[in-house]
Amino acid sequence: MKSHTEYLTIHHPERFGIVHLTPRIDEIVRKSGIQEGILLVNAMHITASVFINDDESGLHEDYRDWLEALAPFDASPQRYRHNRTGEDNADAHMKRQIMGREVVVAVTRGKLDFGPWERIFYGEFDGRRPKRVLVKIIGE
Amino acid sequence: MKSHTEYLTIHHPERFGIVHLTPRIDEIVRKSGIQEGILLVNAMHITASVFINDDESGLHEDYRDWLEALAPFDASPQRYRHNRTGEDNADAHMKRQIMGREVVVAVTRGKLDFGPWERIFYGEFDGRRPKRVLVKIIGE
Amino acid sequence: MKSHTEYLTIHHPERFGIVHLTPRIDEIVRKSGIQEGILLVNAMHITASVFINDDESGLHEDYRDWLEALAPFDASPQRYRHNRTGEDNADAHMKRQIMGREVVVAVTRGKLDFGPWERIFYGEFDGRRPKRVLVKIIGE
Repeated sequence: MKSHTEYLTIHHPERFGIVHLTPRIDEIVRKSGIQEGILLVNAMHITASVFINDDESGLHEDYRDWLEALAPFDASPQRYRHNRTGEDNADAHMKRQIMGREVVVAVTRGKLDFGPWERIFYGEFDGRRPKRVLVKIIGE
Repeated sequence: MKSHTEYLTIHHPERFGIVHLTPRIDEIVRKSGIQEGILLVNAMHITASVFINDDESGLHEDYRDWLEALAPFDASPQRYRHNRTGEDNADAHMKRQIMGREVVVAVTRGKLDFGPWERIFYGEFDGRRPKRVLVKIIGE
Repeated sequence: MKSHTEYLTIHHPERFGIVHLTPRIDEIVRKSGIQEGILLVNAMHITASVFINDDESGLHEDYRDWLEALAPFDASPQRYRHNRTGEDNADAHMKRQIMGREVVVAVTRGKLDFGPWERIFYGEFDGRRPKRVLVKIIGE
């Protein structure tokens, strides 16, 4: 069994953002030399997500509005107890649960085994500082 | 390390549906000959899910109503920007995020290592055309 | 390839609860002797979750209230068809979908490869009876 581990750093300048990761992950799969295996990509921070969906900017704006309706930003200590600790990002901990922490993807014949529209994204819900994404592949 | 990869095609005749996959996955695990490992099952389309829950038809109807309340179907271009591209399925991209893209399951002594009520389902949120599900097992 | 499988039993005395699992998982990783691989931790019951987020009690109470708003407990047969079967826990099947069934974590140099605040939790949405959590590591 072989394994290959890399870390990406994302520094998104705004609180909310969706960043396309597929080209970087493709390159890591190629470098790993693994032909058959499993790829894990996860946010290493708990107010961010890694997810697979469509590379369409209108949809990404729809996600922003939809997540804001389901878990509104509110820095005040009234709505979220977490924001009584001096934090203002309780909403981001909820948004991340809806969008998920990680994706697990098959690697087949040396490539991401994707359907026609599958692309990997980093979802940032409390940005303006550097955060890391872990990429690990195991296989042969 | 051994690996085994298969693709299932699901053609659900309606927009929404929940399809039981466990018997097909059990058979793939058996065919693989893998005794100890990890199984990945994922939707290869971004308006569908693979998830684990109860094989109970009332619950499946509850999911339909609950998801519809959280992310209503609306083909008009007003609610969802994604539907300004000619698509009508923005809601399905949201429903899929709640239900998830994939499941990862332990294979132990040659079988799915499941609790008493765990069953694998395909969740379709924009059907009426064939879509694929990937099944990959790695292990020994 | 090596594999290591264990089962934890959680008996939470109330319907809702969040239980910190990281120390137990750290110990299982150590016992496995696996240096490079992938760890799976999943609820074996379909009204519970395993997820990764912050070890902060205010946030855990926020999750309770937020999930209750998105999928309210209602034992009556009116709101949820599932509760016409004699069950009262349809809401727990929904809460579990938002929080997720499982986490997949990288094991690097013999340890959980975590960001600074990542911790593993069991989320119980229909407790007051023993339930199991599966832990499986594959690697070398």
